[in-house]
Amino acid sequence: MQPNTYIDQIIALALAEDMGTGDITTNSIVPAGTKVNGSFKAKEEGVICGIEVVKQVFDTLDKSINFTPFCRDGDKVSKGTIIAEISGMAASILTGERVALNFLQRLSGIATRTAKLAGQLSETSTKVVDTRKTTPGMRVLEKYAVKTGGGQNHRMNLSDGILIKDNHIKAAGSISRAIEAARKNAPRTLKIEVEVENLDQVNEALDAGADIIMLDNMDLNTMAKATTIIDGRALTEASGNMEQKDLLEVARTGVDMISMGALTHSIKAMDISLKFE
Amino acid sequence: MQPNTYIDQIIALALAEDMGTGDITTNSIVPAGTKVNGSFKAKEEGVICGIEVVKQVFDTLDKSINFTPFCRDGDKVSKGTIIAEISGMAASILTGERVALNFLQRLSGIATRTAKLAGQLSETSTKVVDTRKTTPGMRVLEKYAVKTGGGQNHRMNLSDGILIKDNHIKAAGSISRAIEAARKNAPRTLKIEVEVENLDQVNEALDAGADIIMLDNMDLNTMAKATTIIDGRALTEASGNMEQKDLLEVARTGVDMISMGALTHSIKAMDISLKFE
Amino acid sequence: MQPNTYIDQIIALALAEDMGTGDITTNSIVPAGTKVNGSFKAKEEGVICGIEVVKQVFDTLDKSINFTPFCRDGDKVSKGTIIAEISGMAASILTGERVALNFLQRLSGIATRTAKLAGQLSETSTKVVDTRKTTPGMRVLEKYAVKTGGGQNHRMNLSDGILIKDNHIKAAGSISRAIEAARKNAPRTLKIEVEVENLDQVNEALDAGADIIMLDNMDLNTMAKATTIIDGRALTEASGNMEQKDLLEVARTGVDMISMGALTHSIKAMDISLKFE
Amino acid sequence: MQPNTYIDQIIALALAEDMGTGDITTNSIVPAGTKVNGSFKAKEEGVICGIEVVKQVFDTLDKSINFTPFCRDGDKVSKGTIIAEISGMAASILTGERVALNFLQRLSGIATRTAKLAGQLSETSTKVVDTRKTTPGMRVLEKYAVKTGGGQNHRMNLSDGILIKDNHIKAAGSISRAIEAARKNAPRTLKIEVEVENLDQVNEALDAGADIIMLDNMDLNTMAKATTIIDGRALTEASGNMEQKDLLEVARTGVDMISMGALTHSIKAMDISLKFE
Amino acid sequence: MQPNTYIDQIIALALAEDMGTGDITTNSIVPAGTKVNGSFKAKEEGVICGIEVVKQVFDTLDKSINFTPFCRDGDKVSKGTIIAEISGMAASILTGERVALNFLQRLSGIATRTAKLAGQLSETSTKVVDTRKTTPGMRVLEKYAVKTGGGQNHRMNLSDGILIKDNHIKAAGSISRAIEAARKNAPRTLKIEVEVENLDQVNEALDAGADIIMLDNMDLNTMAKATTIIDGRALTEASGNMEQKDLLEVARTGVDMISMGALTHSIKAMDISLKFE
Amino acid sequence: MQPNTYIDQIIALALAEDMGTGDITTNSIVPAGTKVNGSFKAKEEGVICGIEVVKQVFDTLDKSINFTPFCRDGDKVSKGTIIAEISGMAASILTGERVALNFLQRLSGIATRTAKLAGQLSETSTKVVDTRKTTPGMRVLEKYAVKTGGGQNHRMNLSDGILIKDNHIKAAGSISRAIEAARKNAPRTLKIEVEVENLDQVNEALDAGADIIMLDNMDLNTMAKATTIIDGRALTEASGNMEQKDLLEVARTGVDMISMGALTHSIKAMDISLKFE
Repeated sequence: MQPNTYIDQIIALALAEDMGTGDITTNSIVPAGTKVNGSFKAKEEGVICGIEVVKQVFDTLDKSINFTPFCRDGDKVSKGTIIAEISGMAASILTGERVALNFLQRLSGIATRTAKLAGQLSETSTKVVDTRKTTPGMRVLEKYAVKTGGGQNHRMNLSDGILIKDNHIKAAGSISRAIEAARKNAPRTLKIEVEVENLDQVNEALDAGADIIMLDNMDLNTMAKATTIIDGRALTEASGNMEQKDLLEVARTGVDMISMGALTHSIKAMDISLKFE
Repeated sequence: MQPNTYIDQIIALALAEDMGTGDITTNSIVPAGTKVNGSFKAKEEGVICGIEVVKQVFDTLDKSINFTPFCRDGDKVSKGTIIAEISGMAASILTGERVALNFLQRLSGIATRTAKLAGQLSETSTKVVDTRKTTPGMRVLEKYAVKTGGGQNHRMNLSDGILIKDNHIKAAGSISRAIEAARKNAPRTLKIEVEVENLDQVNEALDAGADIIMLDNMDLNTMAKATTIIDGRALTEASGNMEQKDLLEVARTGVDMISMGALTHSIKAMDISLKFE
Repeated sequence: MQPNTYIDQIIALALAEDMGTGDITTNSIVPAGTKVNGSFKAKEEGVICGIEVVKQVFDTLDKSINFTPFCRDGDKVSKGTIIAEISGMAASILTGERVALNFLQRLSGIATRTAKLAGQLSETSTKVVDTRKTTPGMRVLEKYAVKTGGGQNHRMNLSDGILIKDNHIKAAGSISRAIEAARKNAPRTLKIEVEVENLDQVNEALDAGADIIMLDNMDLNTMAKATTIIDGRALTEASGNMEQKDLLEVARTGVDMISMGALTHSIKAMDISLKFE
Repeated sequence: MQPNTYIDQIIALALAEDMGTGDITTNSIVPAGTKVNGSFKAKEEGVICGIEVVKQVFDTLDKSINFTPFCRDGDKVSKGTIIAEISGMAASILTGERVALNFLQRLSGIATRTAKLAGQLSETSTKVVDTRKTTPGMRVLEKYAVKTGGGQNHRMNLSDGILIKDNHIKAAGSISRAIEAARKNAPRTLKIEVEVENLDQVNEALDAGADIIMLDNMDLNTMAKATTIIDGRALTEASGNMEQKDLLEVARTGVDMISMGALTHSIKAMDISLKFE
Repeated sequence: MQPNTYIDQIIALALAEDMGTGDITTNSIVPAGTKVNGSFKAKEEGVICGIEVVKQVFDTLDKSINFTPFCRDGDKVSKGTIIAEISGMAASILTGERVALNFLQRLSGIATRTAKLAGQLSETSTKVVDTRKTTPGMRVLEKYAVKTGGGQNHRMNLSDGILIKDNHIKAAGSISRAIEAARKNAPRTLKIEVEVENLDQVNEALDAGADIIMLDNMDLNTMAKATTIIDGRALTEASGNMEQKDLLEVARTGVDMISMGALTHSIKAMDISLKFE
Repeated sequence: MQPNTYIDQIIALALAEDMGTGDITTNSIVPAGTKVNGSFKAKEEGVICGIEVVKQVFDTLDKSINFTPFCRDGDKVSKGTIIAEISGMAASILTGERVALNFLQRLSGIATRTAKLAGQLSETSTKVVDTRKTTPGMRVLEKYAVKTGGGQNHRMNLSDGILIKDNHIKAAGSISRAIEAARKNAPRTLKIEVEVENLDQVNEALDAGADIIMLDNMDLNTMAKATTIIDGRALTEASGNMEQKDLLEVARTGVDMISMGALTHSIKAMDISLKFE
């Protein structure tokens, strides 16, 4: 995991909101200088994600804490696996415990689910990709979890990808005019993606030179026709409540990507505990 | 919703991470000065939460945006209900759209689930309460959503409640010593809660004057015995994978509160759309 | 002292406001690479508070500075005591000197005064407690100084204690309705305190189940009657210009706590110097 | 009062530390939409300072609050004077009340004391000036209070004045070398002040062209000799526990300025209340 | 100009660094309440850029300032043109004056130079593009100025474009392996650009499916051969000390883009004054 | 270079704006754990400035990077000189590379130009000084570069120097009244500078006791008369498009300082590369 200012900020905010004016329980009861040892344990099977974040959480609090991971992001672990050990000043570790787990459980939950879905597509060339439907403040980390689980990332935010939707088309007058405006005004380093709903729009987008065509809320039959028409001249992305579909069937229409908001808008934390000796 | 610095921070972070260096699609295609009207619509039944957050998101971006809500936080809406309307500069609204929905859908998802669980207990005096297992950065808002849905809040963070766990007890030597230390060192404005696992510990906590006793991972039978022993001398809280239990059965043991991490550690977004005319 | 974001912020602000664009005197005159040794000396008797803050001030500026404390927060020192030694790059130490002393002198001043007052009550069970009348930005540190001096903390801020005042009572209609609303809406982990001015209100607060009753601006006679009525059913707090009273007399009315705004709203710095060899 | 980033920061920090996760008492008891009217009243005689800060505190919280001041910073008020009125949403005003008073009482306390001391010198041309011994985070405001009370400001921080002390002299080798280095390396827009302890040093500083000479811890007799020697060729500043001296006697030695750390390192808040109707 | 957090930050920093603890000259001399009117005037011919930034600078300081622009970003003005008028409180306007001009002059300087270069290519389809060689903190604004002047933007930062350089190629083993890794691991919404130095590399990049090929430090002859080989199968970018070349000659080799670091790494401010009546 | 909060802020902002959500190229292609060695090389003759900034940039990203400088700020280097070496994790170094160079090249460009101009005056006692016409966010660093190149600094910002301009004079009524107001209201530690345009104003400023007189836009003849009149009673500063003048001729009028906005408002980066082995 590279240095990243968004990650620094969400960790700082998470610590601040959980710490308040200080851990009054530990402060009042645990003698200064008390040390503890503990271990992070998987209480169910899953794909681990967030090891480096946990490290950064504790580093931010107290650089003298020893955190020793036994697996890396992306490792699949079984129930009962010891993921990492930690030791150091009780006051620091107890202050960071909940924040660390809150990151680790959510990110591992996302990676686990993505891995399951990506597994369904393992014999195809179609990829599961994420969306911008991420939890506020967690964008970079949640997309990292999707990638860790074997998915691919779609654009990270509004500035690193062009995605022309209905509204933009209306404002420009037509799909071709919208694409023309994007080509003229946006950096050429970005691909141009267009959201379409029917085969006429597919053709218009193709003619206008779209780099990616998003097939939105199409039935499987139409989707297959679309990929046949496009025939490799643009990348294709299936979209629209994909969490309710059989992904393998979608993949068989020939699309390159299946994007799914539910990867990040609905999250089930993986059960991981931190127990002290 | 009161002014709150944590909310300001998470909104600022959410906008920053989604905006990047700017909305390149809108910038390149939509003519400067273009205006839009849109409406937020519930695409499934649920309890709305986050109306004020949505307002603050758009206010932060552009004070000239008009946002007109048709319901208030806590209102139960049916599928198809128009929740709010918005109008103003397209460039501003399109920049804030996804962030606003990301807040609104998650918070409404939490409120909806909490309302369902609270409803199961409506004929009892037992309350569903949350935990600190919240999404990093979203603590204040997620706890607000639990309250909006009819739950009660447990402590907000490490500084506004004393919760003596296993570790603190070991460090102090015994439950009674831990409670004594807390009473001596912590502000008297805070209640002292102790986590116990068996009836011996219940008695020890009671004798030492605990204000709240958390019955952790007890079977229903033991829990009922515990509440009989306690008999109103302390508040009682049932805890431990409560999302897998029948809450009404738990409530019938006589506990005052049932705390459930899953209220916030596992989230299903409510389906809400923003459509433009 | 635990890691704390409020302390980090006030230290950063204090350094920024004193540094401006840089220490022009040292920069212009002291050759790069010059080192100094110095010692912090008590120039009057007092209770030291702020050793860790001083350390953090210098750490923030330059991690290579050696700061060696000879006493700990809470130690009572006599005039002439060497509190700590410091050595390292002159440019860094001279930049941090004034900020470090500004913290240390104020916090020690508060601890010293609190210790004196707490000493007057040492043979009673009554405690001196602080208020929210602290210096802007210094809340956590000033309350820490009160505790260091032997006082107890009252609530830290508006979120970690319920204190029902005149205004809340008017808005709710009566003391009992205000208490009922608090019990229903606020986290149960917090005690409910009510401010009362006469014995009728004492009775009403008791009946409604207040956890703490603040006896505001009562004469000693009335206060004694109040504690007799309350008889341990609630904690009691004496309040109202207590800096002008004989605390031992107040304690003899039987109150549990005496709160005093003057502990932090009026401060006399302890005289401490940093001299270089 | 001009816009100022340090003031913005200390107000933001003060609000954050007092608000925590929200005003739980008001939130739980006062019905949404409740409005209040209140007035700030001087409970003792003094010089008001901080009216604009109070306004900014409430503006930061809620722009719809009406705050109407009846006096301006620097006005001397008698006991019982209504300083300002306020009206608006109860939730916002109650959240800001304590923070506003904490600023207003301290700043008015400083202005009041400074006014008293400046008054003692009113028939002389000597001015009372402040030092860098200010409360962390409050530098700009406390110096503003000194000026409001009729004192003058010394340098604001390490970057806007050259003050050569013992240490700098040692590092440079002599007073004259230190002054020479400052003249060569520092901006010429800044005056050069030197701290001296005896008449030899006075002469050396004069010869080297010091713009200001600080007479540190001199007895009145020596100080008078120093001003006679200097004879207007440099400004003079008396320094060293001046709070324990008769300022008029010090002024009669002919010094231009008397600097006093106690103006800001030891503060007695002025008694001001906010009462609601 | 859209809302943008980077612009907010650089404006805040610029104001803070210029304001210090306050405008001591204006504060000391100009009576409170004094108002001024002034006008921004072009003192040489150029392309204006930064009107909205100037507005935001003054808005940040004081919302009651009236700022009336007479031209828009991108307008070419002649010497003597009045660009905008301003009126309001002297204290606020004098505080913001220098900061506003510092932005306006630099951005207009960049736009003016870009316009001149883009003009040289106006009869070709080749575009002048910028690089990441921007002034620290000014990235978004300087790239905006390039676009305002008629240039196109290259990638904004490390996250919104893939640019494979020598180092990446070495780490991957070959151009084709580097491209393969990028296609597998990076979002598909981004184009893949490769920096090449000779025709062999051009062929390798083409075969591996590069979307953009940067022809780095090639002579014009080789560059022309490269575009002939590529023949529209990838976009082409000429790079390497282009400020020393005849751009029209470079364009005639058939490249799509000419990137020039000097557009932003070396800046000549446009001469613009703010005069008061 | 001393610790400085403005430098910390601009480095953080520069890294954030260049990093975006992460270095997607390196992330996708360079295997985790890859290390690199590189060297910074001067590609033209110049005066180096910014070595410590480069160090801080990389330290901020990754404390394990080794950065070994071979020269110090202010060293004059010839074309081809190796300025520094760097080694460590590729992911970190590649992320910081562009930001480091952007600082180093600009600051060295300023130092180089200043050195050239200062060299022209080396046989006079006149100094080249900077102005407030610096790049937003870069004030402290750009002024440091001027000093590194052998220039002197004028005031850093609005708070550390009094500079009375036309506007202030109008508001006060006359030069003498403006100076009187400044002497009364501003800290005495600051010198008072007045901007004048003719010899009458020179005399008025002298009579009123100005410490520095800025001769603005005077021809050389008038300037020489002015310095004759002033005759050492005030410092003198020549100002007004000085970049278009022969500095030695200006110096011969006898002025103490020549201030030049172009030192920082128009910048030519020094050509420095970072090459990896």
